[in-house]
Amino acid sequence: MFSTFGTMFRLTTFGESHCRAVGAVVDGCPPRLALVEDDIQQQLDRRRPGQSRLTTERDESDRVSILSGTENGLTLGTPIGLLVPNRDQRPADYGSMSDIPRPSHADFTYQEKYGIRAASGGGRSSARETVGRVAGGAVAEKLLQEWFGAEIVAWVSSVGEENAADVDPETVTRTAVDASPVRCPDSGAADRMVERIARVREASDSVGGVVSCVCRKLPAGLGEPVFGKTEALLAQAMLSIPATKGFEIGSGFAGARLQGSRHNDTFVRKGDRLGTLTNRSGGVQGGITNGEPVMFRVAFKPPATIGREQHTADFSGRPVTLAAKGRHDPCVVPRAVPIVEAMAALVFADLALLQAARSWGRDGGRR
Amino acid sequence: MFSTFGTMFRLTTFGESHCRAVGAVVDGCPPRLALVEDDIQQQLDRRRPGQSRLTTERDESDRVSILSGTENGLTLGTPIGLLVPNRDQRPADYGSMSDIPRPSHADFTYQEKYGIRAASGGGRSSARETVGRVAGGAVAEKLLQEWFGAEIVAWVSSVGEENAADVDPETVTRTAVDASPVRCPDSGAADRMVERIARVREASDSVGGVVSCVCRKLPAGLGEPVFGKTEALLAQAMLSIPATKGFEIGSGFAGARLQGSRHNDTFVRKGDRLGTLTNRSGGVQGGITNGEPVMFRVAFKPPATIGREQHTADFSGRPVTLAAKGRHDPCVVPRAVPIVEAMAALVFADLALLQAARSWGRDGGRR
Amino acid sequence: MFSTFGTMFRLTTFGESHCRAVGAVVDGCPPRLALVEDDIQQQLDRRRPGQSRLTTERDESDRVSILSGTENGLTLGTPIGLLVPNRDQRPADYGSMSDIPRPSHADFTYQEKYGIRAASGGGRSSARETVGRVAGGAVAEKLLQEWFGAEIVAWVSSVGEENAADVDPETVTRTAVDASPVRCPDSGAADRMVERIARVREASDSVGGVVSCVCRKLPAGLGEPVFGKTEALLAQAMLSIPATKGFEIGSGFAGARLQGSRHNDTFVRKGDRLGTLTNRSGGVQGGITNGEPVMFRVAFKPPATIGREQHTADFSGRPVTLAAKGRHDPCVVPRAVPIVEAMAALVFADLALLQAARSWGRDGGRR
Amino acid sequence: MFSTFGTMFRLTTFGESHCRAVGAVVDGCPPRLALVEDDIQQQLDRRRPGQSRLTTERDESDRVSILSGTENGLTLGTPIGLLVPNRDQRPADYGSMSDIPRPSHADFTYQEKYGIRAASGGGRSSARETVGRVAGGAVAEKLLQEWFGAEIVAWVSSVGEENAADVDPETVTRTAVDASPVRCPDSGAADRMVERIARVREASDSVGGVVSCVCRKLPAGLGEPVFGKTEALLAQAMLSIPATKGFEIGSGFAGARLQGSRHNDTFVRKGDRLGTLTNRSGGVQGGITNGEPVMFRVAFKPPATIGREQHTADFSGRPVTLAAKGRHDPCVVPRAVPIVEAMAALVFADLALLQAARSWGRDGGRR
Repeated sequence: MFSTFGTMFRLTTFGESHCRAVGAVVDGCPPRLALVEDDIQQQLDRRRPGQSRLTTERDESDRVSILSGTENGLTLGTPIGLLVPNRDQRPADYGSMSDIPRPSHADFTYQEKYGIRAASGGGRSSARETVGRVAGGAVAEKLLQEWFGAEIVAWVSSVGEENAADVDPETVTRTAVDASPVRCPDSGAADRMVERIARVREASDSVGGVVSCVCRKLPAGLGEPVFGKTEALLAQAMLSIPATKGFEIGSGFAGARLQGSRHNDTFVRKGDRLGTLTNRSGGVQGGITNGEPVMFRVAFKPPATIGREQHTADFSGRPVTLAAKGRHDPCVVPRAVPIVEAMAALVFADLALLQAARSWGRDGGRR
Repeated sequence: MFSTFGTMFRLTTFGESHCRAVGAVVDGCPPRLALVEDDIQQQLDRRRPGQSRLTTERDESDRVSILSGTENGLTLGTPIGLLVPNRDQRPADYGSMSDIPRPSHADFTYQEKYGIRAASGGGRSSARETVGRVAGGAVAEKLLQEWFGAEIVAWVSSVGEENAADVDPETVTRTAVDASPVRCPDSGAADRMVERIARVREASDSVGGVVSCVCRKLPAGLGEPVFGKTEALLAQAMLSIPATKGFEIGSGFAGARLQGSRHNDTFVRKGDRLGTLTNRSGGVQGGITNGEPVMFRVAFKPPATIGREQHTADFSGRPVTLAAKGRHDPCVVPRAVPIVEAMAALVFADLALLQAARSWGRDGGRR
Repeated sequence: MFSTFGTMFRLTTFGESHCRAVGAVVDGCPPRLALVEDDIQQQLDRRRPGQSRLTTERDESDRVSILSGTENGLTLGTPIGLLVPNRDQRPADYGSMSDIPRPSHADFTYQEKYGIRAASGGGRSSARETVGRVAGGAVAEKLLQEWFGAEIVAWVSSVGEENAADVDPETVTRTAVDASPVRCPDSGAADRMVERIARVREASDSVGGVVSCVCRKLPAGLGEPVFGKTEALLAQAMLSIPATKGFEIGSGFAGARLQGSRHNDTFVRKGDRLGTLTNRSGGVQGGITNGEPVMFRVAFKPPATIGREQHTADFSGRPVTLAAKGRHDPCVVPRAVPIVEAMAALVFADLALLQAARSWGRDGGRR
Repeated sequence: MFSTFGTMFRLTTFGESHCRAVGAVVDGCPPRLALVEDDIQQQLDRRRPGQSRLTTERDESDRVSILSGTENGLTLGTPIGLLVPNRDQRPADYGSMSDIPRPSHADFTYQEKYGIRAASGGGRSSARETVGRVAGGAVAEKLLQEWFGAEIVAWVSSVGEENAADVDPETVTRTAVDASPVRCPDSGAADRMVERIARVREASDSVGGVVSCVCRKLPAGLGEPVFGKTEALLAQAMLSIPATKGFEIGSGFAGARLQGSRHNDTFVRKGDRLGTLTNRSGGVQGGITNGEPVMFRVAFKPPATIGREQHTADFSGRPVTLAAKGRHDPCVVPRAVPIVEAMAALVFADLALLQAARSWGRDGGRR
């Protein structure tokens, strides 16, 4: 259940860490949208590990194939099948853990839920599952670009206790983000983050972080009251990413400490539209976009797999000591950047179709 | 669109601030569950304003009727219609605002979205809409109590910069929460919060806060990978409540600053089950409950309606000065407590049915 | 579960035969559509029993109230709550049947499914449930009229072995249909049907029939491959009506006996559009409307409640003799006419929104 | 949209006639169900053309791969990815038709709907799409066998005007069905059908037919009032199959001609359960299974592609003459048999999970 996301622009993902392939089906994408494999590959490449010394070095080349739903580089309006073969189909380093549930992993809970679990790796809870999301999100992004010229940019704003200084959400670009190996556009903070990750790696430990995201040039009017508020769907989307622990939009938790007279975004004329002087709302009011940039932040816990010894228990409750072997990401937030962008794109593509459904245009839905 | 929440245990709400009635339909509730109007009325009474000098004093008696779906105090398995008439069906104080979109309200975005909006009050974005949620959530809670003996308790943990000291999530009760008018079980903090709200009211201002919630005695195994992770659905549920700006589960944003060796929850035997020594995961791993208490926090912004003058613009962009008349809540978090509980109950009732669906019992679904 | 119909234009119904009220929530209706209670009441009045000597004479005045979702006669885009109180809230004639499952009724299956059932009447399987559908269908029809000028007309084409001669689907109107008490626009056949029903009533028996329906002036392009084909959703909609046993579109079962050279609808120019010379397809090809009238037929079994003695068994399997008391419809098809129209309207309103969702108009979904 | 079928046991299909692959994702299948590729291949082989001289001879070997969701021959409870490469990825015989919409095909309606269509073949409306359904249906059938020992058997009951004599629905088997090349278990009728198809082929024409289906050993209590009635979902499922024009359950259209005293199924004790003496209801009452065999029939029109000349019009409305080249099935009903079985299995697997969801077993959904 629940491997499908979205009401009108629907992504269904499949695949776990060591099966034959991971992939996705995108259903509901409008017809005649330009789409080729390279559009998708770009974001998959940003998600891939092994891009720098900061991340795990397993080789996952992750070449995507479009199986269906396009012809001559245009979408047909039919489901788009996306496939990425798993290279590493047989587990190696993981075998020894099988009777010990790894702390803060999903081994125990999958076993409790299903009475069975994939013999190795994280199965469906593994980051490998996010390949399908990034692929599907790239399709969603093409739609948002074509309809609105929308821009979605995420970046690393914290690693452990190292925080980026304010990044201008009106102007930050993916190019600026990718300029540093930690994907932090504040170069001073980026250096400190790199150093921090190196220290953590040396200590066979791991560290958490925060990803910030801005979505620009979206029209006002997206978002569905009541349960489909923009922030509600973004929150679901972000908390569905492995290792996330929190979500905030606009002023977020800090806003809870303010008084209304300081928090309210008053209106001003901005060219031919009504805008707000400040943006503590984060681009949404009453769950509906107001035309200002949508801004949110996502907290990621430190990766659960660490080389340091942990005193824990096996499935039978017997105390054991565990230390992970093999290579592991000490910090996932740089790789999480395109995943956050993908999930945001999926939310807004869906909301755009839902809003479009309210009127019958002269073209009768043919674009 | 999106006035329905849940896949198997479904709540559909209807109604806005000044129409004839608000209400809800609960579909998918199992048969033969004991349910009478008083079960629902209790939580509605906790949601109602006018309970103390701290909250707005409009009289909304909010008597719920069960229209269908039960007989002789038992559910029939058919949809449960719930109705609460609106007393105040004709607007009064709001009339003058109609050509000025109130800052940080939904007037502007509803107008942009629909090209029309309710002439007064917040329409569907108003807190009045939450009546249907609290009513439906009370039904969900009955199911969770009957199936699991589950306990869901929320409380106010912050008002502005006043924070409650640690509250023991294993033992806190609704009685303890309701002992203070701000619904904070730490009495020292409660006093400071009361004072803070009084000061803000005097200044014709408002203040935000944080609601914490614990869900105890839920079985391990609830939550659906991938997009239906427990924390993802809780996040959607909470961010769908009016005025919310953030959600965190377990260690939350603070967890993003930690290292893995400090964050991981190692396993220990707890009686006849496997538990965790700490609970930074907040009761979920890989999106699935692990049998520990589920713990999360929700940030609420300060109410947008304030008596103080605000310099803003009308719909045409012309600068205007606005000051709200009438009585308004300076702080909504005490009233938000039963709403948070209701939404949590709806999430877990749905997840419980989804998990139950995986096996065919000897009773063939008849309970 | 499954008290909701539709993906974008969603109807949720509630209520059973003897509870406080039946009703519905329409979610997803576009804003700024003209809608008042009288628009809905007209179709409810056509559904009501007691309109003529041919149907059961219980008094169900069925006055509908719009509880929410409109203001000043226009829809707000928010959920439309619809309520019809049940007058007859306490059962009378039905009490004695409680330990005998009525043959070809749902008493036995509800008991098997839920382990409980409404003490009297048919509960949720009763025709009373269709009040909510007819009310919701009237809203859908308003949308189809406004967007397309669409016309949906159903009529009785058979009662037992009495068949209407060909009715011209291009021109038949509701006025012509309502001219006869059996709702058959062929007056000769109508007379024979009336006589047939009278004979059946005298014999304390009942008789089945067929309702035909045409939907005109719908645009080409509605219907969603694969599982959302127009005919698939119509078939679901029609077979969800109590007492239905069959559905056919266009040539239907008779078409299965033909050869392709006789069955194919070849194309011809019709004014400024491409049309078909014949319409054995019934207005759909590949599940998508082609601009020709959509034509289908629905089979209704004879009502299960009859005054004649039946030799059957009680719940424990003991042989018993049963004869229904009270007044009962000997033939439901005349009353089924507005229900068939309502369900057809709900299908096409949903398909229209789904098709509209494919393009972003200049008005951004505001109509 | 609508490439997904089912609420809990969900099938999503993708792929069109000449893209790289067709396939499906099965989401919601319970864990620990025995499943290997051969379970699926068996039904795919029955669907394949080229099995006899009666059907088209294109070589489609249709080897299925399970990409995910199983390990060591058991389901994991995670989505099951199913892939069947298309051998014939480049069109040949179809090219010449591109500016002429084929009569009673979907060329015209897809073009109207999407403003684009696959350059060759039927795209998504092609029978090729049913590969994913048959594959997914085979998984559903495994579940129904394991939970209930259910048996689903479909057969050809009519080809043109040749009808099978009564087939005993209590005993008919797939072996008996497959004994004849037309899949009709009445050998006399089968011979006449074979001859009929041969004559039609010689005449470069095509012929329609009817498929009957029985589903045995399903428990009482499946089916969801109101819109999810067993017959409603079966009707949707069947009318979603290409080329279908009608559906009837139990007595069907013939039942509409009967009187209630002849139609009602009275109850009798059958061993330790309550059964019915007759089965005009077709195994359902009030939309819910009653434990008797579920019986239904599906009408298929004659295939639209015929070698005979047709006088029609091109997209611009200009009169043209069209005669299909290449090999084409003159009669699809024999190949439709496993497709009807697959769709029935998908409906009942979904209804079984929905009914199971109503009670929490001691195993907490782990089976």
